[in-house]
Formats: sequence, structure tokens, C-alpha cells
Amino acid sequence: MNSNGLAKITGLAAAAKSASRRLALMTAAEKNRALVAMADALQRRSAEILVENAKDVEEGRKKGLTKALIDRLLLDEQRLKGIASSLRDIAALPDPVGEIVSGWRTPEGLEIQRVRVPFGVICVVYEARPNVTVDAAALCLKTGNAVILRGGSDAYRSNRILAEVITGAALEAGLPGDAIQFMLDKDRDALIELLQMRDQVDLVIPRGGEALKDFLLEHSKVPVIYAAGGNCHIYVDETADLKSALDITINAKCQRPGVCNAAETLLVHEAVAPDFMAAVTKGLQEREVKLFVDERTRELAGETPAPLETATETHYATEFLDLQMAVKVVSGLEEAVEHIARYGTGHSEAIVTRDLEAARRFARAVDAAVIYINASTRFTDGGVFGLGAEIGISTQKLHARGPLALKELTSIKYVVTGEGHVR
Amino acid sequence: MNSNGLAKITGLAAAAKSASRRLALMTAAEKNRALVAMADALQRRSAEILVENAKDVEEGRKKGLTKALIDRLLLDEQRLKGIASSLRDIAALPDPVGEIVSGWRTPEGLEIQRVRVPFGVICVVYEARPNVTVDAAALCLKTGNAVILRGGSDAYRSNRILAEVITGAALEAGLPGDAIQFMLDKDRDALIELLQMRDQVDLVIPRGGEALKDFLLEHSKVPVIYAAGGNCHIYVDETADLKSALDITINAKCQRPGVCNAAETLLVHEAVAPDFMAAVTKGLQEREVKLFVDERTRELAGETPAPLETATETHYATEFLDLQMAVKVVSGLEEAVEHIARYGTGHSEAIVTRDLEAARRFARAVDAAVIYINASTRFTDGGVFGLGAEIGISTQKLHARGPLALKELTSIKYVVTGEGHVR
Repeated sequence: MNSNGLAKITGLAAAAKSASRRLALMTAAEKNRALVAMADALQRRSAEILVENAKDVEEGRKKGLTKALIDRLLLDEQRLKGIASSLRDIAALPDPVGEIVSGWRTPEGLEIQRVRVPFGVICVVYEARPNVTVDAAALCLKTGNAVILRGGSDAYRSNRILAEVITGAALEAGLPGDAIQFMLDKDRDALIELLQMRDQVDLVIPRGGEALKDFLLEHSKVPVIYAAGGNCHIYVDETADLKSALDITINAKCQRPGVCNAAETLLVHEAVAPDFMAAVTKGLQEREVKLFVDERTRELAGETPAPLETATETHYATEFLDLQMAVKVVSGLEEAVEHIARYGTGHSEAIVTRDLEAARRFARAVDAAVIYINASTRFTDGGVFGLGAEIGISTQKLHARGPLALKELTSIKYVVTGEGHVR
Repeated sequence: MNSNGLAKITGLAAAAKSASRRLALMTAAEKNRALVAMADALQRRSAEILVENAKDVEEGRKKGLTKALIDRLLLDEQRLKGIASSLRDIAALPDPVGEIVSGWRTPEGLEIQRVRVPFGVICVVYEARPNVTVDAAALCLKTGNAVILRGGSDAYRSNRILAEVITGAALEAGLPGDAIQFMLDKDRDALIELLQMRDQVDLVIPRGGEALKDFLLEHSKVPVIYAAGGNCHIYVDETADLKSALDITINAKCQRPGVCNAAETLLVHEAVAPDFMAAVTKGLQEREVKLFVDERTRELAGETPAPLETATETHYATEFLDLQMAVKVVSGLEEAVEHIARYGTGHSEAIVTRDLEAARRFARAVDAAVIYINASTRFTDGGVFGLGAEIGISTQKLHARGPLALKELTSIKYVVTGEGHVR
């Protein structure tokens, strides 16, 4: 990177840090007014935004982006309205900053409080989804953090106009102008430089796939909250209600197969496999799910609507994100737990059982962000959990595991008050 | 590293991971029994331990280790008794694992619990302090984590015998034999290899200086909890009780100058500086503190017991860890906050004031792990805070800020229970 580029990124980070100090002192009311002003501005200036977005979409089509990517990129009146409405929802949530998480008095009479505070500066790195631009900015502002947004280059024009609109509105509403920073240039070196600035940037949150994760592992000296993909399992235990097991399996696989909390492998206890396999393979295949099965499953499934393929190690290790599922008969809970430990990614894991002891053992022995007992893995979501908006799902154990909602975007600080106390 | 070494470290990490799964399921009573057995074994076998330690000390003297380093390395009957006694204290603390941190029911009737769980495998990297070997192992075991200990090579023999003693006792008490792993070889490459194993190692906790920190920033792909040094400040506000201010300053600087929560710079409001400077410089110099002061302080201090040196940028930026202190007159709270933002390391920062508004502003505006109002910075300590034993002080904002006590050695897991719930 040339010295000009370095000066630019250094300046941007310093401005964000400085803004974060002012932002940390603002009241919830001030921040919420800004969020509502941003929502209003997005709707008022929707025509401009859609024009710029259309240019990105056109260029994306020319470049041969897949239909799915184009769909992620595309904005229309309805989607913009949805984005604005989610800003108002975030404004309506309680502000976690200032919460006294706990407090006590020591034997010497010192009063100790653990107080929730903003991180400072959060850098969000994401792909070509313009809605993330607005969502991430809003969640960070709400929690008193300055934010540096680094979106995908395919959404360049959309992000530029969205940046202009929301930054302008926030500034008018009294927020520090530098609280929302955009890295609009496509310079990878600038990002690498930023990832070294531990004094200026407090946290990096990636929203992207394995390539982005590897890039950050390689380059970031700033702490990162990683989210692995979700190779999620449904384990149908010996005592499972088989109707529930069928419903949960079909829901977890088919309701929205392209998301991280969809199930990828079905494990069935050998005691119920004879009664369950024909029904579940039929149910899944009727919904056009392609199945990769072990020999025992093939025997028990009998005649199936479509051919069954033979499962390999690779299938068990794959997050299909599609209408595909691996199926395996296991000797019991122990084998299920071992299979999940081996192939799972620590996201969402479900057991279907009527046995209290089995439920407790599964919940304790499986190492994942979310364990489900008699419920679909599809529930892993900040909104569904009642946490309000989320910026992603963390599968790491440090700081935040599961949905990254508002509280997870904060740190804590001890405030200790004495009366001249010395040691 | 040769393939033999790689196989060894891979095996060690896999064994620790496997042990961590069994350890996570053990009850508090089982873990506490093991901790007490370890304490007993340390005392029973003290003669052997002291013989090995004496060899390390002798070699250290030959190598010309400083007196301070030799002191850290040295064990005697009294110190071993202290180490054993701290094991019993840890056994007596409540087990954080299994705590239901929060829980609620969603509108759909799903029951959600956030449950405290072990991390899995924690790697502790430290210098030549044999007591850390035992302490770190005990804190990790208590919290259900397997631990990989990587001590300094100067304590090689001491660590080897301590390892043998406590691992043997833990195994006899029914803990998985691989729950405590020692990296006794001095191979840096083996550590670097371990730091890539994100699937096996869940967390790294360093206890060492800046060189170790830089090494981990360079090499670790496993999350690390960093602790910066403590460039701590005392700010004496306009309305301060000057007797308190004097006591707090002298205590924070002199009670134990070599530790991270000792104060390094004194900032005094210009309105009280004329009444305070002579007393505080005299008080500090009588305790043999060497002072680096700005011009205003020099004028106000008048005749002093010893000469005052002129403070430079470097002095303000230095964690002396010694009987040295920088002193500066500031125009008010704003300048104090700015000075701390510029030179502080986010550890412990104190204000002495009688003004409620100033106390609140300081507490909110200063970005540090612990803020003190009318108390010495020397209180930053897990034990003093009432958290029980600690493994260090974190100055990072991710996961844990302030003392790293038992709770900070755990993560959480969501356990969600339904009755066949699907989306």
C-alpha cells in the first residue's frame, strides 16, 4: 500500500476512535432519535438509492453473478421499507449500555459495580448485501460503538449511497459525523492495515464464508468473533415421539435449507430405526431432499420414492445448505454424541426424546452454541430467542456464543467507589 | 519441527480435548476432591519438589538470572505450603459450571436457558514461576477445563516434578489422566503448532510480558485473552480531599511498585496544585520515589528533599514498575481524561474528588478495565474484589475485562427445550 493509502486508513481509524469516545457518552434517547432519522432518510431518498442499486445489479449480471447473489444484492421499494422498519425496531429496543450487570460491597467497604459499556470501534466485514450496511451500522450505533463498514465490492454503488444517506441523517440528528465510517475502496491492503490497529479498532465481526474467516485468521491482530458454518444434526433417540421426530427433521431440513441453522445429518437410534426410516426417508424425498445413507438405513427404508445414495465421510462433514441430507443409524446416544463431536461445527444440535436422562446427557455432552431438546434447529436466531435484532450467530466460545444481539456488542467496565480506601 | 515432534503435539492436544469432554461432565464434588488430593500430594512430596527446584535455582544463578527472577523461581517449605493452601481455597469456591445465567420462555413456548459451561481446553503460557503451574492447573480443573501448561524453561525441573505430583494425584482422585498436560520441552515450534489447532484448543491465556504478547499476536489462531501492562493514573480533582489524595497517591505508587495496578502518573487539577504539590512531592520522595515533573509542578513543589527531573513524553508513556512517578498539572478533568486516553493502557484509573458530577464523568469517559473513585488503584485483584482466585487481569474488552476469575474461565451454551416445536 502506498503512503497515501496508509494515511487515509490511519485517519479513518483515528476518526472512528475519536467519535466512539463521544458516542459512548450519548444517551439512549439521542441514539434512538438518530436511528429513526436514518430510517426516515432511507425512505425519503429511496429513488436515489434504487437507481444506484440498479447499476450494481446490472454490473453483477454482466459479471455473471449467480441468481442467489443477485438476489442478495437487489433492493426494491419493499426491501428498503423493510430495512427502514428494522431500524425503527432497533431504536425501540432497550439500550444495553449503562446496565449494571452486577454490584456488591467488599468487606473493606468498597462498592463495586460491573457496568455495561460499548466496545469502542467495531469493524464489520461483509459481502455484497446492502441491507447489512444499514443493519450493522444501526446495531453498532445503538450500542454506542463507532463502526467501520467494509462491504463487498459488488455492492459498491449501493453502499456508497446508503452510507451517504444514513451518515447524513445521523449527523443531522446530532451524532458524531465520524461514527459511521465506510471503506468503499476495494483495496485489500487497506483492510489488512486496519486489522493491525489494535489501539484504534476494538473488535472485528465478519459476515461471510470460510474464505473471509481464513483471511482474518491470517491477518487480524484485532480480536475477531468468528462464526463457523452450521453442520447441524438431529438425533432421534430410542424413546422419541416419532411423529415429533418426523416433523422436526422435515422442518429442520426443508423450511429454509440455505441457512446455517438448517439440519444436515439425521442420526437415528437403532431401536427406533425400523419404525422410523421408511417414514422419514419418504417424507424427506417427497420434499425433494436428496439422501446420503448408511447401509442400515438403506435396508430399513425399504422401497423409496427416489434412489438413496451411499453416504461417505465427506457427506457427514458437509454443510449442504441445500435439499440434501446424510442419514445414519447409531447404536445409541453415545455414538450420536461422538458423531456430532467429530463432524459438527458447534452450531445447533437437536435431540428428540421422551427420556429425561437422555435429554440431560445430550445437553451436557454435546459441545455446541445451542442444544435443542424436542425442537427444530431452525430456531437459532436472536429475534426468535427474544433478544431483538442480531448481527450474526457466533460459534466461538470467547465472549459470545449463539446469537450476537445488542448485549454481545458491549463489554463491561468495573467502577469501584471508596472513601479514600488504600491497601 | 520434525514429524515426530508434530505427532507428539498433535497427540497431546487430542488427548487434552478428549479429557476435556469427560471433565465437563464431572460434578463439583469430584473436581474438588481432586484439588484437595493435589494439595495433599504437594505437601507429602515437598522434599522431592524442593530438590528439583534447587537444581533450577542453581542453574539460574549460574546463567546469571536477576535476583528478582531467582526469587520468582525459588520454592521453599513455606511457599509450597502456600501453594497447597491456595489449592484448598480453590476447592472451597463455588463451581461456576452449570450455573443458569439466565432463562426465559418465548411466546411460542420454547424454554431457553443460558448455561455456564467449560471452554474445553485452555493453554496457559507463562514464565519461570512454578506456582503458576499449580495455580493455573487448579483454576482450569475447577472450571471443568483441560489445561495445557507451557512454562518457562528456567523452571524446567520444578515444573516436571510438580506436573508429576499433581497429575498423579488428580488421576488417583478419578480425574481423566490427560486433563493436565505439560509441554516440558523447550521447542518453540511445538508451541507454534499448538497455536494453530483451533479445533483442539479453545483458549490461550498468556502470563508474561510484551514479548510473549507479540509472539502470540504473530502466531496464535486460537483466541487469546491479552493483558496489557498497567500504566495507571491518579487524577486529583479540584474538589479532592487532599489528605485522601495524598494517602491514595502514596499507596498506589509505593505499597508494591512492581505490580501492574501500581500508579505511574499523578495528574493534579491546577486549582488544587498550589496546595497539594509540596506535600505530595515530599511524601513521595520521603519514600524514595524518583519524580519526573512538568514545569508547573516544579514551581509549586518549592524546595524538595531530592531533585525533580523534567518529565518527557517517554515518562508519561512508561510503566515504571518501580519507585518512579511522573507528575503533571492539568487544567481540569477534560485534560486528565485526554491524557489518560493517550498514555493509559486501559488497566486501572483513579479519580480523587468530592464532586459527584466529576466522579460520574470520569467513570464514563475513561476507557479502562477498572475505574476508581476515591480509592487506590492497588485494589484491582480478583481476591480483593471478592471473586476468589484469579489467573490474571485482562485489559481487553472481548469476553473478560478486569480480573480473570473462575467465571471468566467458562463460556455459555444455550439449552432450548420444546415439545416438538417447528418453525
